Amino acid sequence: MFTHIDDSGRARVVDVSGKDDVVRIARAEGVIYLKESTVDAIRENRVAKGNVLNTATVAGILAAKKTSELIPMCHPLQISSVSVDFELLENGVRAACEVKYVGKTGVEMEALVGVTTALLTVWDMVKSLEKDEGGQYPVTRISDVRVVEKVKREK
Amino acid sequence: MFTHIDDSGRARVVDVSGKDDVVRIARAEGVIYLKESTVDAIRENRVAKGNVLNTATVAGILAAKKTSELIPMCHPLQISSVSVDFELLENGVRAACEVKYVGKTGVEMEALVGVTTALLTVWDMVKSLEKDEGGQYPVTRISDVRVVEKVKREK
Amino acid sequence: MFTHIDDSGRARVVDVSGKDDVVRIARAEGVIYLKESTVDAIRENRVAKGNVLNTATVAGILAAKKTSELIPMCHPLQISSVSVDFELLENGVRAACEVKYVGKTGVEMEALVGVTTALLTVWDMVKSLEKDEGGQYPVTRISDVRVVEKVKREK
Amino acid sequence: MFTHIDDSGRARVVDVSGKDDVVRIARAEGVIYLKESTVDAIRENRVAKGNVLNTATVAGILAAKKTSELIPMCHPLQISSVSVDFELLENGVRAACEVKYVGKTGVEMEALVGVTTALLTVWDMVKSLEKDEGGQYPVTRISDVRVVEKVKREK
Amino acid sequence: MFTHIDDSGRARVVDVSGKDDVVRIARAEGVIYLKESTVDAIRENRVAKGNVLNTATVAGILAAKKTSELIPMCHPLQISSVSVDFELLENGVRAACEVKYVGKTGVEMEALVGVTTALLTVWDMVKSLEKDEGGQYPVTRISDVRVVEKVKREK
Amino acid sequence: MFTHIDDSGRARVVDVSGKDDVVRIARAEGVIYLKESTVDAIRENRVAKGNVLNTATVAGILAAKKTSELIPMCHPLQISSVSVDFELLENGVRAACEVKYVGKTGVEMEALVGVTTALLTVWDMVKSLEKDEGGQYPVTRISDVRVVEKVKREK
Repeated sequence: MFTHIDDSGRARVVDVSGKDDVVRIARAEGVIYLKESTVDAIRENRVAKGNVLNTATVAGILAAKKTSELIPMCHPLQISSVSVDFELLENGVRAACEVKYVGKTGVEMEALVGVTTALLTVWDMVKSLEKDEGGQYPVTRISDVRVVEKVKREK
Repeated sequence: MFTHIDDSGRARVVDVSGKDDVVRIARAEGVIYLKESTVDAIRENRVAKGNVLNTATVAGILAAKKTSELIPMCHPLQISSVSVDFELLENGVRAACEVKYVGKTGVEMEALVGVTTALLTVWDMVKSLEKDEGGQYPVTRISDVRVVEKVKREK
Repeated sequence: MFTHIDDSGRARVVDVSGKDDVVRIARAEGVIYLKESTVDAIRENRVAKGNVLNTATVAGILAAKKTSELIPMCHPLQISSVSVDFELLENGVRAACEVKYVGKTGVEMEALVGVTTALLTVWDMVKSLEKDEGGQYPVTRISDVRVVEKVKREK
Repeated sequence: MFTHIDDSGRARVVDVSGKDDVVRIARAEGVIYLKESTVDAIRENRVAKGNVLNTATVAGILAAKKTSELIPMCHPLQISSVSVDFELLENGVRAACEVKYVGKTGVEMEALVGVTTALLTVWDMVKSLEKDEGGQYPVTRISDVRVVEKVKREK
Repeated sequence: MFTHIDDSGRARVVDVSGKDDVVRIARAEGVIYLKESTVDAIRENRVAKGNVLNTATVAGILAAKKTSELIPMCHPLQISSVSVDFELLENGVRAACEVKYVGKTGVEMEALVGVTTALLTVWDMVKSLEKDEGGQYPVTRISDVRVVEKVKREK
Repeated sequence: MFTHIDDSGRARVVDVSGKDDVVRIARAEGVIYLKESTVDAIRENRVAKGNVLNTATVAGILAAKKTSELIPMCHPLQISSVSVDFELLENGVRAACEVKYVGKTGVEMEALVGVTTALLTVWDMVKSLEKDEGGQYPVTRISDVRVVEKVKREK
């Protein structure tokens, strides 16, 4: 028989077949800190590489749908909706991603993947504005990525 | 001829064909804050869902290789190497991802995607340890995701 | 709170959780125009790069299943069936893709992605037969891609 | 030895290792025909599902980079640049996709996949405006998808 | 109308919409034969490229979830669970993959893709230990890949 | 600094940037054992689900190109060519996959992924012919998957 030589390493996608189909909503948020001049360029839509927030919205939504490919132990899901929103701060951009699903497992990982990919896409779009002369990023960083709300209710 | 009705929206993968082939290395880091008891469980390898850091390593490496699928304006690259490392903190886990490439474009986005996906995978693996009785995450968050070093040198 | 600075850009995967589970069938068609000699080569299965219609069938089916990865606002779906068919014309090939699904959203985008990818694969398989001496395509084009039928009925 | 029982079916990715590394540019175009009122809604950016042309730009660029996954016999390529443009017509939208690459194989399939996916994304974004009361699409169709220019020159 | 010129080539994802939703479990196994010294290195976790069995577990699980992308006529499924296990033999490693699903189609292909990818990942991790001085693999081979159990029962 | 708490788990994509660009060819083979009646059905092209060998060819080629997505520590590569061949045996099908690449790393994993996916696709196409009345597979198995030749030579 199979002897599990290293039981601790037995990662698996856990069985959810016994759970109920309920409505699940998760909302995650996070911030990317940027130079003020970069935030101005985003606000005024004069970033040479393209529209920053629209590109980040599409990237975040597509990534949220790819969660089970990226996070090994996540279940593939037929999610009901995904949206990504942004708020411009003085020194950065706050992003949020909300995912809704009717089924047997929560969708906070989907919301987290969506918001993180949206923030990383913002970074990619403004790279040339954020780099110093040595090619380093003295200001740019992503922080405060968290799940702000998880809802679970009967259909 | 084509009149660009909304020039600001013309996102594109910028032409790098005129650039030189140089060695490029990027290292990104980030932290996930967790309960101390969760860090203990990771250190002692007694998380029911599987080995947390090994799973996160593989996830981070695979994601770094998928960067051009996730971040819309990134170029597809034949990267030379990728690695993911972790440091256990008292109240969290610090992850790092280092990517090397010989070619015409930097690889900081690859390193950032790698480290972010590694941290998100840590989150996914310890969800049941981090949630409170209402299913919320009062402690868990990802912060300080940044590029710690970018190198560019002749072959 | 989040102020939507550019409301028009707020693309999203719309919520379908309130819709009923019904049987949905969509059929899309399209044509690729080719040289008559190329159609003959397809009919007689003497295209050097391989069997054109079989390769295009597999490509169309795989692409239809990837629709939610390609079309940003499409929902991931557990489709029930997909098929691709071809009709040889004198000066081209007509392709059709039919998709069936039981659920909350129509599948015309899946059928359209399937038929389009099938036609593009035909193009790829016969490139060397269609190019002129300058490497251009004076004849080849894809046209009349449309949804020929959408059905929605109770289970 | 291997006897090829059905030689005609032996599709393959053909060997390009003997070819020279040259600069290659391909530009493909296509049109989606729409109701005039839908074109107005796109122009005035009042489509409920989001910004149509920005979403289609990102979708087209991502798809062009995925060409070797979608078209079975295409080579995976480190493309140098991709862009997608649109022109609003009275009764539709014309899209173009331009791809540049330095290497051993042409990139017309990449440009065709990009333009087709951009047009399909336009369709998806305006579905509710184009459907009649029976859920059918009496007007919408994609046509004239072709390669308008292929360039090949020394580095 | 469509005349099917080559009916035999009409591959398709067959319609399962008329089938019942039942619990389905499939377990597949297979073996990779290796040098005894390589099995020792795996057992003692001193393979330079990383932890072999943990990496193979994650790879197998991710691949099982990708089955409908890899095997053209497979349906995309919201699987309930996946796990991968290993048994060290004297001269190889036996792997098993178990997949559970509640729905209209069996999951043996998912289990087979999972076990095969796990075994191929073992191979990749120990390449340098298995190759002879000419770079060939005199010992390594994958065998006995089979479905050991398929279960189908009412919910 | 980073203290590697579990050094053995530090899987990584190893650095190949110091290696030479040489021509690399790998050929892998494997066998799927089937009922004789199933082999007859494949030979006579009367399998209801579609043309078995053509579908398996396309699946194997696409999978070989996806190797770096499936096998975590494999490098993404711009491969030069891929082909898949079959030989019908009395009680099974032998498949081979040959991959060519000019670069810094061997392509045996690509050839192995290609041949394995081709064999798994054969299995999927003939499932209904191979299953017994209890839904089990008494005969079907994949064996002897190995690298038959690896070549490495100057350009």
